[in-house]
Amino acid sequence: MWTLHHFALCPFSRKVRLLLSEKGVAYELETEHPWDRREEFFALNPAGRTPVIRNDERGVTLIDSRAICEYFEETVEKAPMINGTAANRAEIRRLVALFDENFFADVTAPLMGEKMHKRLFLRQPPDSRMLREAMRLADEHLDYIDYLIDNRPWIAGATMSLADLAAAAQVSVADYLGGIDWSGHEQARGWYSVFKSRPSFRPLLSERMGGIHPPSHYAEVDA
Amino acid sequence: MWTLHHFALCPFSRKVRLLLSEKGVAYELETEHPWDRREEFFALNPAGRTPVIRNDERGVTLIDSRAICEYFEETVEKAPMINGTAANRAEIRRLVALFDENFFADVTAPLMGEKMHKRLFLRQPPDSRMLREAMRLADEHLDYIDYLIDNRPWIAGATMSLADLAAAAQVSVADYLGGIDWSGHEQARGWYSVFKSRPSFRPLLSERMGGIHPPSHYAEVDA
Repeated sequence: MWTLHHFALCPFSRKVRLLLSEKGVAYELETEHPWDRREEFFALNPAGRTPVIRNDERGVTLIDSRAICEYFEETVEKAPMINGTAANRAEIRRLVALFDENFFADVTAPLMGEKMHKRLFLRQPPDSRMLREAMRLADEHLDYIDYLIDNRPWIAGATMSLADLAAAAQVSVADYLGGIDWSGHEQARGWYSVFKSRPSFRPLLSERMGGIHPPSHYAEVDA
Repeated sequence: MWTLHHFALCPFSRKVRLLLSEKGVAYELETEHPWDRREEFFALNPAGRTPVIRNDERGVTLIDSRAICEYFEETVEKAPMINGTAANRAEIRRLVALFDENFFADVTAPLMGEKMHKRLFLRQPPDSRMLREAMRLADEHLDYIDYLIDNRPWIAGATMSLADLAAAAQVSVADYLGGIDWSGHEQARGWYSVFKSRPSFRPLLSERMGGIHPPSHYAEVDA
């Protein structure tokens, strides 16, 4: 059995969870808060980050969300998520990087810092200037999703791919933290609501991070 | 013919250049300074980052250094750089991410900010506290390279891989900017000096970023 070390609002763990569910790979969850800097966790992953996934029977420990996704893409045939020609696959990976790196740095990371870290650990109010800037950048990223979905049924092309999972993972954490204003983003909202109804996504939407409440629309499929 | 949009001290472009040379793929260089925010470059890559590589005859534009490397790994058989079992490949990708993300954030990015960006654009002196912290973290990363090379001939295992290219690309930019103190890192130094003598690496070491001079040992193979 696979064990995934994660925490509820880790967007990279969410991407891996969506992939595992779509592929039908069973796994158990173990909560890890990287900011606790547990020695045992650093021994497992010197980079000290979630997600880490391990399978003790097979003696395999995998680290880094993209490396983990590529591993399951290579070893589990069901529901291919990095598919098509080499150019198609490059387009999927470009968009995964765009959400993992740019959306995360612009939107998810500052929201997590202001609304999760400050609230739970520093007991400080969020910096409203930082929140406004994160929401402004979220709006720009949603514009780009609108543009993509205007031109293709899914984020990276004709079929659902890892790019959709990466985007939905980041968007879902930002939405939980109240950073997404969906008004004026009909295409992005339509794409995301299809996602929210998938069996792979339902368990994520029902989880809560202690002490932080999502907005009422967060887990509603038709919102 | 492929055209790579890069700048001399972009570590991600360096990784791609090392891969292309090892694989024998011919390419032309076009210098792009992403901080100029050229409209034509943003039209090519909405994320506004180097590297971008394009081949107009084939109508292909590739974005994101890892997506680019995976593309050439899939399309050019020579010199496989993400090789072995699925677990080996995951280990290579874990280490690529470690250097692309952690080494870059801890060491290369602050050095580029303090010694390149401030000097060339802001005409400010570097912040010595920031430099000391980047060098302290560089030392920790070199300790980890020492540890890896104590246990394996190459960064990710028995053969040279994309992990070596990613590590050498980051280390070389940090070394150019005077951020690497090699003393006490015999294993890392030995690994890196093998690299410096490779034909793929020589052209990078002879290039200069206008206005910034590397330390005297930078391009010397035996230093």
